[in-house]
Amino acid sequence: MHIATLAIVGVGLIGGSIARAARQRGVADRIVGVDQNAEALGLARNGGLLDEGWQNLTAAVTSADLIVFCTPVDCIANQVLAVQPHCRPGAVLTDVGSTKARIVAEIEQNLSANVQFVGSHPLAGSEKQGPLHADADLFLNRLVVVTPTPQTDVGALQRIIDFWQALGASVLQLSPKEHDDALALTSHLPHLVAAALAGVLPPHWYELTATGFRDTTRLAASNPSLWTSIFRANPTAVLHGLDRFISQLQHFRDAIADDDRAALLTLLEQGKKVKDDLR
Amino acid sequence: MHIATLAIVGVGLIGGSIARAARQRGVADRIVGVDQNAEALGLARNGGLLDEGWQNLTAAVTSADLIVFCTPVDCIANQVLAVQPHCRPGAVLTDVGSTKARIVAEIEQNLSANVQFVGSHPLAGSEKQGPLHADADLFLNRLVVVTPTPQTDVGALQRIIDFWQALGASVLQLSPKEHDDALALTSHLPHLVAAALAGVLPPHWYELTATGFRDTTRLAASNPSLWTSIFRANPTAVLHGLDRFISQLQHFRDAIADDDRAALLTLLEQGKKVKDDLR
Repeated sequence: MHIATLAIVGVGLIGGSIARAARQRGVADRIVGVDQNAEALGLARNGGLLDEGWQNLTAAVTSADLIVFCTPVDCIANQVLAVQPHCRPGAVLTDVGSTKARIVAEIEQNLSANVQFVGSHPLAGSEKQGPLHADADLFLNRLVVVTPTPQTDVGALQRIIDFWQALGASVLQLSPKEHDDALALTSHLPHLVAAALAGVLPPHWYELTATGFRDTTRLAASNPSLWTSIFRANPTAVLHGLDRFISQLQHFRDAIADDDRAALLTLLEQGKKVKDDLR
Repeated sequence: MHIATLAIVGVGLIGGSIARAARQRGVADRIVGVDQNAEALGLARNGGLLDEGWQNLTAAVTSADLIVFCTPVDCIANQVLAVQPHCRPGAVLTDVGSTKARIVAEIEQNLSANVQFVGSHPLAGSEKQGPLHADADLFLNRLVVVTPTPQTDVGALQRIIDFWQALGASVLQLSPKEHDDALALTSHLPHLVAAALAGVLPPHWYELTATGFRDTTRLAASNPSLWTSIFRANPTAVLHGLDRFISQLQHFRDAIADDDRAALLTLLEQGKKVKDDLR
């Protein structure tokens, strides 16, 4: 895998980590970054993540062979469509958005033959934000889901697969909808649950929390604005997952209200079995 | 703080860690352990945690000055009441149960003047089990709640406070009911939530989980039988906390169904604020 010029749009934790990983693994000759936030751009340049930093999106991407969009899910499609007239012919574009169906559909409906797009979602991240936390090993041994459709160019798909593998990840292919249905339950719902649980804790009990509460609510520290966009971009699957979860909570509620030892034990064993199988 | 003979009833993770901490900090001259499980007892003796290990509860406690019950919450009151005729006069008894109101009430209704009891709950633990995971620093800088009542002997209370402080913990005094109300939300509810969330994940999506799902459901690995007893020992407060949580989830549900950006952002910011304040 070799890229002459890699462009990263949005130089936060994920974009910065892609830059650092690509640099350390010699994947790209030149790494260009774009960010509206001059401070993040400055940090990324001073940290050696970027060869060039731009605030202007279209100017930055003109020379890029591979462009990765690491911006909020409600910005990605618009940005991809805005830059495509300025891209080199044959440029391959991807993103790292936590939702895929809407983004991929919006882009494919309006993509010119000049460039190729393949959706990606690395299952890696942190509640930490910004390029200061950029980690060259963020993708190492992690899964990246890529979401080709019948329209996807086979060569571009292979190039994106090679790219993520070159950063140390393994790659799984799913349709955009399969991705969104699964991630609603494995990622979006846990974020919602963590935020809801943290949100009901009154301040006078803060000192009575221990590692259990802190781990269960770790994801509540995530960026509220980013997660608002993610829930809004995948509402049907998130609501479906949330309803399954509330129904499971109601089973717990009934078992406790009825003092039903066998039912409680079964519900707890069901959770433990999943947990044990996941190890 | 100095104890001639410390007896530990139930030599699992918590009991084993008390033994190891007491040993390392020179808190007790002699440490005696009791467990029905011969294998756990053997591991604890071979690991140097205990000077003596017994399967017979009453025989083990006759020489003890301080006895700590580290058994499931539905066993503690019966065991305390069963051993009291065999204890030395003036022996001080405590426990580490995750619920307090029922245990303390049942014991105080039947306690002879021969011995003293003070309820305790160290906010420390792990989803790991057994004396092999015993950790001398498990209580270091952790909070232990002790739950005196108007009946509690002042000298015994001070002795129990000194004991936990000698193991490295800080001590907070709450009434048994205050303890149970708070822990329902800060500990029992997170266990329930983790088990419910793990329980709704279908096997074909296991590979699409990442650290977010794993952290949010960490507590689902806990012992189902122990947690069944805990929920049954504190049903009113757990149901109250669960209802608050389900109501918060319904607010999320409405905001997603209505595509209400402002409401979603407010809910996520509410969770993040608690998380940030907890740091």
